[in-house]
Amino acid sequence: MKIKKILFILTLLFISVSYAQNTHSHSHERIIDFPDIPGYKTLTCDLHQHSVFSDGEVWPSIRVQEALKDGLEAISITEHLEYQPHKDDIPHPDRNRSFEIAKNEAEGHDLMVINGAEITREMPPGHANAIFLKDANLLNFEDVIEAFREANKQGAFTFWNHPNWIAQRPDGVATLTDLHRQLINEGLLHGIEVVNEYTYSDEALQIALDHNLTIMGTSDIHGLIDWQFKVPEGGHRPITLVFAREHTEKALKEGLKQRRTVVWFNNLLIGNTEFIVPLIESSILVKKVIPLSSYKGESLVEQVTIENISDTDFILENLSGYTLHNSADVVEVKAKSNTIIEIKTLEAKPVLAIRFRVLNAVTAPNTHPEIVVKIR
Amino acid sequence: MKIKKILFILTLLFISVSYAQNTHSHSHERIIDFPDIPGYKTLTCDLHQHSVFSDGEVWPSIRVQEALKDGLEAISITEHLEYQPHKDDIPHPDRNRSFEIAKNEAEGHDLMVINGAEITREMPPGHANAIFLKDANLLNFEDVIEAFREANKQGAFTFWNHPNWIAQRPDGVATLTDLHRQLINEGLLHGIEVVNEYTYSDEALQIALDHNLTIMGTSDIHGLIDWQFKVPEGGHRPITLVFAREHTEKALKEGLKQRRTVVWFNNLLIGNTEFIVPLIESSILVKKVIPLSSYKGESLVEQVTIENISDTDFILENLSGYTLHNSADVVEVKAKSNTIIEIKTLEAKPVLAIRFRVLNAVTAPNTHPEIVVKIR
Amino acid sequence: MKIKKILFILTLLFISVSYAQNTHSHSHERIIDFPDIPGYKTLTCDLHQHSVFSDGEVWPSIRVQEALKDGLEAISITEHLEYQPHKDDIPHPDRNRSFEIAKNEAEGHDLMVINGAEITREMPPGHANAIFLKDANLLNFEDVIEAFREANKQGAFTFWNHPNWIAQRPDGVATLTDLHRQLINEGLLHGIEVVNEYTYSDEALQIALDHNLTIMGTSDIHGLIDWQFKVPEGGHRPITLVFAREHTEKALKEGLKQRRTVVWFNNLLIGNTEFIVPLIESSILVKKVIPLSSYKGESLVEQVTIENISDTDFILENLSGYTLHNSADVVEVKAKSNTIIEIKTLEAKPVLAIRFRVLNAVTAPNTHPEIVVKIR
Amino acid sequence: MKIKKILFILTLLFISVSYAQNTHSHSHERIIDFPDIPGYKTLTCDLHQHSVFSDGEVWPSIRVQEALKDGLEAISITEHLEYQPHKDDIPHPDRNRSFEIAKNEAEGHDLMVINGAEITREMPPGHANAIFLKDANLLNFEDVIEAFREANKQGAFTFWNHPNWIAQRPDGVATLTDLHRQLINEGLLHGIEVVNEYTYSDEALQIALDHNLTIMGTSDIHGLIDWQFKVPEGGHRPITLVFAREHTEKALKEGLKQRRTVVWFNNLLIGNTEFIVPLIESSILVKKVIPLSSYKGESLVEQVTIENISDTDFILENLSGYTLHNSADVVEVKAKSNTIIEIKTLEAKPVLAIRFRVLNAVTAPNTHPEIVVKIR
Repeated sequence: MKIKKILFILTLLFISVSYAQNTHSHSHERIIDFPDIPGYKTLTCDLHQHSVFSDGEVWPSIRVQEALKDGLEAISITEHLEYQPHKDDIPHPDRNRSFEIAKNEAEGHDLMVINGAEITREMPPGHANAIFLKDANLLNFEDVIEAFREANKQGAFTFWNHPNWIAQRPDGVATLTDLHRQLINEGLLHGIEVVNEYTYSDEALQIALDHNLTIMGTSDIHGLIDWQFKVPEGGHRPITLVFAREHTEKALKEGLKQRRTVVWFNNLLIGNTEFIVPLIESSILVKKVIPLSSYKGESLVEQVTIENISDTDFILENLSGYTLHNSADVVEVKAKSNTIIEIKTLEAKPVLAIRFRVLNAVTAPNTHPEIVVKIR
Repeated sequence: MKIKKILFILTLLFISVSYAQNTHSHSHERIIDFPDIPGYKTLTCDLHQHSVFSDGEVWPSIRVQEALKDGLEAISITEHLEYQPHKDDIPHPDRNRSFEIAKNEAEGHDLMVINGAEITREMPPGHANAIFLKDANLLNFEDVIEAFREANKQGAFTFWNHPNWIAQRPDGVATLTDLHRQLINEGLLHGIEVVNEYTYSDEALQIALDHNLTIMGTSDIHGLIDWQFKVPEGGHRPITLVFAREHTEKALKEGLKQRRTVVWFNNLLIGNTEFIVPLIESSILVKKVIPLSSYKGESLVEQVTIENISDTDFILENLSGYTLHNSADVVEVKAKSNTIIEIKTLEAKPVLAIRFRVLNAVTAPNTHPEIVVKIR
Repeated sequence: MKIKKILFILTLLFISVSYAQNTHSHSHERIIDFPDIPGYKTLTCDLHQHSVFSDGEVWPSIRVQEALKDGLEAISITEHLEYQPHKDDIPHPDRNRSFEIAKNEAEGHDLMVINGAEITREMPPGHANAIFLKDANLLNFEDVIEAFREANKQGAFTFWNHPNWIAQRPDGVATLTDLHRQLINEGLLHGIEVVNEYTYSDEALQIALDHNLTIMGTSDIHGLIDWQFKVPEGGHRPITLVFAREHTEKALKEGLKQRRTVVWFNNLLIGNTEFIVPLIESSILVKKVIPLSSYKGESLVEQVTIENISDTDFILENLSGYTLHNSADVVEVKAKSNTIIEIKTLEAKPVLAIRFRVLNAVTAPNTHPEIVVKIR
Repeated sequence: MKIKKILFILTLLFISVSYAQNTHSHSHERIIDFPDIPGYKTLTCDLHQHSVFSDGEVWPSIRVQEALKDGLEAISITEHLEYQPHKDDIPHPDRNRSFEIAKNEAEGHDLMVINGAEITREMPPGHANAIFLKDANLLNFEDVIEAFREANKQGAFTFWNHPNWIAQRPDGVATLTDLHRQLINEGLLHGIEVVNEYTYSDEALQIALDHNLTIMGTSDIHGLIDWQFKVPEGGHRPITLVFAREHTEKALKEGLKQRRTVVWFNNLLIGNTEFIVPLIESSILVKKVIPLSSYKGESLVEQVTIENISDTDFILENLSGYTLHNSADVVEVKAKSNTIIEIKTLEAKPVLAIRFRVLNAVTAPNTHPEIVVKIR
């Protein structure tokens, strides 16, 4: 393992070299990067994945290498408890084995590997993940509620997977059943996937809001992240951003249980106003303000350079009442770039507060958060 | 020497084939391409440009070559009548000379070169273009209204240039004066630049709407199109799309006078509902519809491939009432690409009509057109 | 002006050519493509790979998917017979299992999956592959010569792996031992890896030439092809091109046994003159010949467009005696591109035969093949 | 095997540095960059250009802006004295006018603008440039020798333009006439273009060597540098590198008169051994040396990282006698990148001196310089 340690130090060296020399190489870009928000670290997590130990196509070590390339802070490989298509070749009876191999692979890195498993049933309740398990083997109950109870007894965080899955819901409409209500009421089910792999669900988001469930998004990867999410072409896997007091498993679990999450899926952010607004406001920085001038002297038009330090583009609708000199009301602010907006201030002002609606973010179905950018 | 140059360009033609493959198709992409609309051809025009014959930095031939590279259908080189900074070197008294050279350069191409000139005064009325002139020399009047009268006598189409120009309006706010009202009322002024070079003006758009002026957008280029509008990086000059009955100067002028225009500026379309809606509906084609299926059979989710054949991206807000399986309510449909949307139809339907608001298009300040995409 | 007219017609031609040739995406480019040669099909093969069934990190299905993406025609997953680090998790006693899974995955595709295994010993003889096995389980002999005998009894093609491997040869110098001589003399060893993963060996090439061994190049992949060989950035795995009478396993084996191979490694081709010359001559096509002309008439300089239809660049040294009008004596001809050379013919000739030395190909250490390009 | 894999990933780390750099931004790359050599500054110069003041298509200001974008240190706009196709529009009688405008445009920049003119005659002597003129108007003689005498009286540096031009030499073969011999013998002609626009001439190089003329390469641009030399796709104009004691016009002229030049054309360097060898040796730096190691300890294979800090790729032929572990004898070292070579040293040595022939550089027709790279 020491050689691996050296290897990854060298990897880091290489990454920093390539960062310095080319600010837009693929290798640099794929690190998923969002800023911290006031009071919390922003942890990038993919908590629903598979390996050869259930129905995936890679050894758990590849899951760790993918996560390191993506710069994730936490992963969980959540093998199906009840679905083991490789069992003739891999008859291993220990349901924690995938976790152990990944944990070992991640040694020497900041990546947290969380022990998890997927409770895999017909609908209801469909599939659910239990993560932060102590021993996945103990979840093998006939009665699904018993499995949830055991998970909770072990202190697990649990979430309902792909409630919109067309194999279990041919209309794609996430719908709560009595069994789900029971699990929620008993405090056994804590979160719900609003995003799974290639899908997003307005209905799942509404369920999360109505029942105080944590908003989750995961890759549910079985093959290769790079192929499935077109990483070389600029794509990325869906992730859950968890706002945690520190970079520890305990703080991560506390953040999840306290519903401090935002999901990133394609170019969309999904989360509660309380966290999505500070995330966006921390992502968009005013970098420079100069009044536009012509050969006849200064004007009343302020040129404002906005830097987006995050990895998502933003589509902003100007609600400020000031019209812009270089755009209509909808402004795109590309990831990891500077964007200039020119504001007709009408009169010189010490501070301008520009309100924007963020159209590529949702806090509820068809509902977009509003942020304020202060310009001094 | 020029023939020698041409011969070497021939060489370059073939050399460049091998170059082109490394960075795929910059040369292809730069042709500006929008579809025709029912009843009209869509002509791509840049009707405000300069050469060394006023204060530009290139011989008129370069303006033609730039236009051919951009695939434009009409240009006008509108030299300043009253502002001639190169006159010590180019004392030519004939104000039609720039047009003649460009016209000659364009021989054998489909590009229409329109004779024009820029009436260049202090505000009011500021600067204005007169195009489709017979003889630009005759516009040299002390009294600006007389210049407009002469232009109109020659059958010209005239438009107010950059009413938001901070050298003449330090607040950047396009504002009508009594002189402009007089020109409009007498039928001497027909259009207004809502877009000039790097700027857009909500106020100019409102003036166009209030006074039935043609909505115009131009590059007002003095240097090089490629540098100024970052063409190699994917940028483009602002253009006016004119909806004309045919590809002739007469039809072009008729289209302009009848206010059948849409302006394309960065990723924004500006125009009247009457023309902007068919333009967008002609740009977005439903290519394929298949119901999503799982291993348990077909679902009620329809996968729809939408092809955007135009050169602008679209930002669409789903107003249909159906929720999407792969997106929240805002969908980006990139230029010259296919985009897949997955619609939860709830029940099998023969035809779905999906209404979208087009957020990167405006028909009035803060007002976005709505289109309908029919899916069979 | 007429010349300009012609010029612009040619410009349009060029644009359409570059459009046609350059719509390819990464996914298209990664298909490895070399032309057939007279009398033979050119089969692209990677015959040394690993999966989780020995010390690799992927399920065999991924090896098939990688090969399909690369457009390979044959692969072999050659698990170590004696080295089974995953045996606690995958205790499967059947050494053909990896092959069976891959074979199953490839069903319905043209890809040939060949049963193989790696005989894994200390030096001598080091590691060797046996492919086209009937039953890999039968190779488990203490005595390595017995293993080779059994492989040959099954009709296998065998080759010595990475004879330059620094773990077994700290000086990196491939060197024959008595044991190897015995294997060769008894007809038990048929080929040798001149290329393995990231390495090339002049000494291994010399051994192949001295002892009539088949020249082999393989990826020896354990992780992911895309990561290891930087496929998204334009890299490729090393492959062996086998010249076979048809696309069948039998013909492939016959081609290997008859030493009809060329190895492709980075931008280098390695092989016998008998096959490397027709391969290069089939890759480089004269596409068009026009005499350069000036406004004073035709010249004696011929402009020749050469198309390289293969996936490797070529570095050509002009040995013809004619000097070039657009280059010194060394010419680069990029993969999948057209390159122009201009030849000062001194007098008009019906046919020119241009001899080139191909500097990025070797037939022996420091020895480069010569080809002739005929221009009519 | 896993350790072997890890070791090779180490190799990959460094290889990927050179990959990564291929994708960095066009805007950065276009600054033409070559290192200084011992005793001299390396000045990048394009000393043959045209504007609207003879038969070019741009105002002289564009020539300055192009040069600034390319990071050139000196330009000359050398209008045809005798060929003035724009004279009806630009009747200016002062042949220094183009220089004055460019000089003015360059104010505040480090770019040196040199007054020059092109003596434009039938062959012999064809065309020639005279630069560092005091007054171009005084060169208007019927007798071309008188023009050269006047240029030399003003202290000019003169060179023969495109001696291979097919309009004047239909065979493209640069050939000295008696008139040229007279000019050379009288010391009136100092240099010769071995490269002009898209052409290179072995015969011109031989004339330069035989008659001690300065080796020159120029763009002879009439249109736009960016279009003609495909700058956005990674192309560049031909330039002359002049080795001067300092960045002054005086030192530049002294360097030209002393024949201290190397021409850069596409990927080819042309020059005398005395200057081309130090230029290449200053361009290629040994950055890091580590012995390759396996899990069984260090090997005798040295991994050497070579950095090419120049803007040209190099094609190197290994003449050292050591064979390489990752390549045959021809190695490509890409511009502005790191390249790894692995040397089988056979025994540990304190210093290795690796001799390479540089195949993309010529000191005479078909003659390539040799350099030595010292590895400690």
